[in-house]
Amino acid sequence: MSFSPLLVRLIDALRCMPGVGRKSAQRIAFHLLERDREGAGKLSQALAEAVAGIRHCNRCRMFSEHELCSICSSPGRDETLLCVVESPADVMAVEDATGYKGHYFVLMGHLSPLDGIGPEELGLQKLEERLVKESFQELIIATNPTVEGDATAHYLADMASRHGVPASRIAHGIPLGGELEYIDGGTLSHAFFGRRVVD
Amino acid sequence: MSFSPLLVRLIDALRCMPGVGRKSAQRIAFHLLERDREGAGKLSQALAEAVAGIRHCNRCRMFSEHELCSICSSPGRDETLLCVVESPADVMAVEDATGYKGHYFVLMGHLSPLDGIGPEELGLQKLEERLVKESFQELIIATNPTVEGDATAHYLADMASRHGVPASRIAHGIPLGGELEYIDGGTLSHAFFGRRVVD
Repeated sequence: MSFSPLLVRLIDALRCMPGVGRKSAQRIAFHLLERDREGAGKLSQALAEAVAGIRHCNRCRMFSEHELCSICSSPGRDETLLCVVESPADVMAVEDATGYKGHYFVLMGHLSPLDGIGPEELGLQKLEERLVKESFQELIIATNPTVEGDATAHYLADMASRHGVPASRIAHGIPLGGELEYIDGGTLSHAFFGRRVVD
Repeated sequence: MSFSPLLVRLIDALRCMPGVGRKSAQRIAFHLLERDREGAGKLSQALAEAVAGIRHCNRCRMFSEHELCSICSSPGRDETLLCVVESPADVMAVEDATGYKGHYFVLMGHLSPLDGIGPEELGLQKLEERLVKESFQELIIATNPTVEGDATAHYLADMASRHGVPASRIAHGIPLGGELEYIDGGTLSHAFFGRRVVD
């Protein structure tokens, strides 16, 4: 005994989303069909248009509908700074929080040999080309402080030093409002050995 | 600063799914665009076809592509038994586990006045018509043992007794393999007062 063929196909198709298993897919399918057919229609259209229309920016690999994304094609950015991040969401986070006005390079992931993600998958040739062709004063490495993010940061720092571009990595330590007592040991140790002279 | 318009629309559209907020929608959108465009295309098509093609069975309210679902149109089912469940998934569960060969009625929810779900939303007029027109020997109430499921069960039992149809409710108690020591008090109390003579 099983559901009608279209429903089975919908439940199967929903499982392409990360974190959605058989039960969640069923729950989502029932919800959409029973309570939000309009939303389901809109989602179908948005997916089709996104797959057809969204590509990577030729310069920074950010998702974009044009050859260059809005940041790369903006005339008001500092051409001497390049910040490397793991995901498009990180670009947004840096933009919203920091007032940084340089350029970006989006890896769309991190080095993870076990998952078959090497330098090629992260577009690091393109990054190397940019390091050669453009004249950056600083490469700001903003990968996540995870094992993979650290490995990626080392790789990027090596690449930058080969091409004579000074590299920096954003600081890791106690977050604002955090309390020493409750912070994890790794972060505290990072913060302790990364201490700076008070001036 | 924000993502490209198509990406913003996709992230918004993904939020029509239950349990998907802004962050999850972003994560899903990035995953689909970066790692599974084929899956995204299939999902878009499956959604469109499901919205266009799936309706409710005229007799039992199950999701179906035809006027009658496969169970209602099957000639080999017992026409004197009707089992009322809350969701299509419950039909599958009963079918797979029990060998029950009667008919179903799918409420697509439970009575929940605060959410605006009353007898009309659950199609209870249609159920009442069936109780009048068809000649059932038993109405098996298989709503969930929750507050709303209990309220719905009471409502259904009243309706059945008005029309002279004997009603039963599936048993609640210790699940097979469960241990008294670890079972919650409500279930244990249910099981204790619902004890049966050993024969």
